[in-house]
Amino acid sequence: MDNDAQTGLIRGRLSRRSMLAGAAASVVTPVVVAGAAGSSAVATVRAQGGVVRQVTIYAEPLVDGLYGYGREPGKATIPGPQLELYEGDALEIELVNNTDQRLSIHPHGVDYDTASDGSPLNDSFNEPGETKTYVWKTTQRYESIGGFWMPGSAGYWHYHDHALGTDHGTMGIAKGLYGGLIVRRKGDILPDKQFGIFFNEMSINNKMAPDTPMFEANQGERVEFICVGHGNQPHTFHLHAHRWADTRTGMLASENDNANVLDNKNLDPGNSFGFQVIAGEGVGPGVWMYHCHVQFHADGGMVGLFLVRNPDGSMPAGAQDAIDRFMNHQHTGH
Amino acid sequence: MDNDAQTGLIRGRLSRRSMLAGAAASVVTPVVVAGAAGSSAVATVRAQGGVVRQVTIYAEPLVDGLYGYGREPGKATIPGPQLELYEGDALEIELVNNTDQRLSIHPHGVDYDTASDGSPLNDSFNEPGETKTYVWKTTQRYESIGGFWMPGSAGYWHYHDHALGTDHGTMGIAKGLYGGLIVRRKGDILPDKQFGIFFNEMSINNKMAPDTPMFEANQGERVEFICVGHGNQPHTFHLHAHRWADTRTGMLASENDNANVLDNKNLDPGNSFGFQVIAGEGVGPGVWMYHCHVQFHADGGMVGLFLVRNPDGSMPAGAQDAIDRFMNHQHTGH
Amino acid sequence: MDNDAQTGLIRGRLSRRSMLAGAAASVVTPVVVAGAAGSSAVATVRAQGGVVRQVTIYAEPLVDGLYGYGREPGKATIPGPQLELYEGDALEIELVNNTDQRLSIHPHGVDYDTASDGSPLNDSFNEPGETKTYVWKTTQRYESIGGFWMPGSAGYWHYHDHALGTDHGTMGIAKGLYGGLIVRRKGDILPDKQFGIFFNEMSINNKMAPDTPMFEANQGERVEFICVGHGNQPHTFHLHAHRWADTRTGMLASENDNANVLDNKNLDPGNSFGFQVIAGEGVGPGVWMYHCHVQFHADGGMVGLFLVRNPDGSMPAGAQDAIDRFMNHQHTGH
Repeated sequence: MDNDAQTGLIRGRLSRRSMLAGAAASVVTPVVVAGAAGSSAVATVRAQGGVVRQVTIYAEPLVDGLYGYGREPGKATIPGPQLELYEGDALEIELVNNTDQRLSIHPHGVDYDTASDGSPLNDSFNEPGETKTYVWKTTQRYESIGGFWMPGSAGYWHYHDHALGTDHGTMGIAKGLYGGLIVRRKGDILPDKQFGIFFNEMSINNKMAPDTPMFEANQGERVEFICVGHGNQPHTFHLHAHRWADTRTGMLASENDNANVLDNKNLDPGNSFGFQVIAGEGVGPGVWMYHCHVQFHADGGMVGLFLVRNPDGSMPAGAQDAIDRFMNHQHTGH
Repeated sequence: MDNDAQTGLIRGRLSRRSMLAGAAASVVTPVVVAGAAGSSAVATVRAQGGVVRQVTIYAEPLVDGLYGYGREPGKATIPGPQLELYEGDALEIELVNNTDQRLSIHPHGVDYDTASDGSPLNDSFNEPGETKTYVWKTTQRYESIGGFWMPGSAGYWHYHDHALGTDHGTMGIAKGLYGGLIVRRKGDILPDKQFGIFFNEMSINNKMAPDTPMFEANQGERVEFICVGHGNQPHTFHLHAHRWADTRTGMLASENDNANVLDNKNLDPGNSFGFQVIAGEGVGPGVWMYHCHVQFHADGGMVGLFLVRNPDGSMPAGAQDAIDRFMNHQHTGH
Repeated sequence: MDNDAQTGLIRGRLSRRSMLAGAAASVVTPVVVAGAAGSSAVATVRAQGGVVRQVTIYAEPLVDGLYGYGREPGKATIPGPQLELYEGDALEIELVNNTDQRLSIHPHGVDYDTASDGSPLNDSFNEPGETKTYVWKTTQRYESIGGFWMPGSAGYWHYHDHALGTDHGTMGIAKGLYGGLIVRRKGDILPDKQFGIFFNEMSINNKMAPDTPMFEANQGERVEFICVGHGNQPHTFHLHAHRWADTRTGMLASENDNANVLDNKNLDPGNSFGFQVIAGEGVGPGVWMYHCHVQFHADGGMVGLFLVRNPDGSMPAGAQDAIDRFMNHQHTGH
């Protein structure tokens, strides 16, 4: 691997073909704070209101000047662990700073007091080597006046450093300190698989093609994409052969819901959205691109693969050829 | 005309005043695949489910290094023919490549298998001189669980090359290989006129003012705008004196629909949206600007005119003066 | 203060700590055209349809080459006075041009004929020293066919110059000629306080931190943010510890409304949106940042403070320390 000293992005040169055997390699492993902790499946039953979960997160240095959040010492990843809650839950995060830098954790979408803001403005960060607890709360929508409802916490959100390098965490984010955060409403559909896509400057999850994540699912599985934008560049996220509604869930709320339906959406710094699709529905199995639709960004490596396997998990005809082309095109393209 | 070798954009120097006599010049001529082929009116009756239409599209070189899609040999245009379907229809496109370049056709929003992806990744493109068939399918929304509905294909979409120059069609798009694609639901309102606006790098439909399209309608006509973004720049589309709802149809779904109402919306690479307005409603006839609201883009020529004529089709007082100013300002401005 | 000759942005060097005593300093003072003119409270009762209000606006030169709109001679501000209407109202604006430049006033969202377009295209502007009347009309939504409703004028809109410097008012906008415009529906909830945030090139309200506005409210007050984008840069607006629905009102329309909920949204040139939050709800009092989430923009000074005081109006513990840090960090940061 080589390392871009300015952006912290790494560009691997290793073929990923061998990774196909290990299907889970690029799949987000959620921290199931909503259910039985440590389970690999997302919980399906939730008590409402006031359940408090604890999780310890380790911020650690990685190779090539990168940083990551992880659930165990020495196991930090980019992106960090995906965190999930149901409206009404709270999450206490014990953040262990195993680096020599000032850093923090700042969430979008949920409630926190100034001590858990994660910002130097509010003196809310971890000094090098320090451990500190951040508390995130969530709430349900409630009726206001005039027929309007104040929104609750449910949404496809994210968290990130807000203190490393600058008061806005510009270096921490550039170097990998970010992750996904989902708050669900009771009754929301739970997916079979989840994929986290972070457009961070000119990278996807701090990788560039052909080292970007290849997400895998079997045709017919319900897969959830969580998309987050970071950095300084405007981006648009495009997924081939699948579409979603521009709503909280990515689905429509009724037969006559008039919401926009999209397959391309702005993913600019700080933005986040998510959606669920049925893998390969109406289009069949195969290798489908996801990429930034800014042309020079796509050409420069902001592209990855969504491999939809046959319903029985076997490789579809032509899929391996497409993967090989992707590896070779991207190699020769740079 | 002169030609910018880098972008493929042409800047005409001919007055367009004489074009006012020929009202249809800048109006999109849709390919009425949803009804009687070849008719100039959009079909109003549709069978549901599984009707397959055929169309042949010719990709051809144009002057100044540009390319276009067309329905007949020697008649390619920028944008290409507008394609329309109803949910449930399929479209078989026989793409004839009359150029010496590798190219393809890739749609947004609809269903296709990997052979019709239009991407080099899936070996889906036309070699120079080659003819190949691409199949696009559409589907209706359906109820999932928990009260949610998976979205159907209906929307204001678009198609474009995905193979000329790079694996993402960056040169093909820059040089003009794009067009509009509408999928309607049964019951959607059909417009009297349709206008296609493609913000492509620093151009509108690969033209810069004063050569950008002047769209024309009579006051009271229902006109449909289809807006698509391409290239590498962030843009915002603004239309003077008209507004729309930020929904699938550009209209609200009920008396208490709380959707956003806009007259300015991001039109970034790969984005598309559409809406219908009643020409001149509440504001009267006259010449109204549409433009990118990024100031330097507007100043640089990303601006065109929407001429709302009197209800009887005659020119409103002052309209010709405004058009003349537009021609002169833009000439002297560069 | 020093002045950036190219952008017209000023960077003050004065501490703003002393301003805490004067709570109203950074709060938008709306022009209550919907109710009793001159009142500081927003009117709560409106007749429907055809009420015409008059207001005189003075466009004037300010220090450092800036310009502003104001309600009285010598009292122009950046942003200009906030204007409010109910659907059905009209507003006659007598614009007095007390500058030596050609300029105008152009609104978003409302209805106007070509004479009130505010564009040189339609010969609609004020020569230096000239006074001219512009008329803005509004309308309610109405049912069309097929169950669709054509949208009315209600929304969080804005107005700006469209004639100073270029035919698109590029210099007028850069130098401060802009303001907020709200059109409400009968039954909309009225806020206790209103804040206007204009991302204009690399500034907020033509100020950079630490001179950006500090907005203040007591915990539990209903505050309304009006956000507008201007200039040439893409931006995203982020507010700490508060969120809103991506709808016309920023609230949901029912218990099962599936609209997106956000705390970060594109605020690109010409865009506008607004929302209401209950100050400090679920998070408590304190100092909360609002900022552009483009990292270099935040680091460069596109950040301000939302001070949520205790319910009785007293300063929360730690708030003054945070304000002092903000002043000092931003000073040392440049």
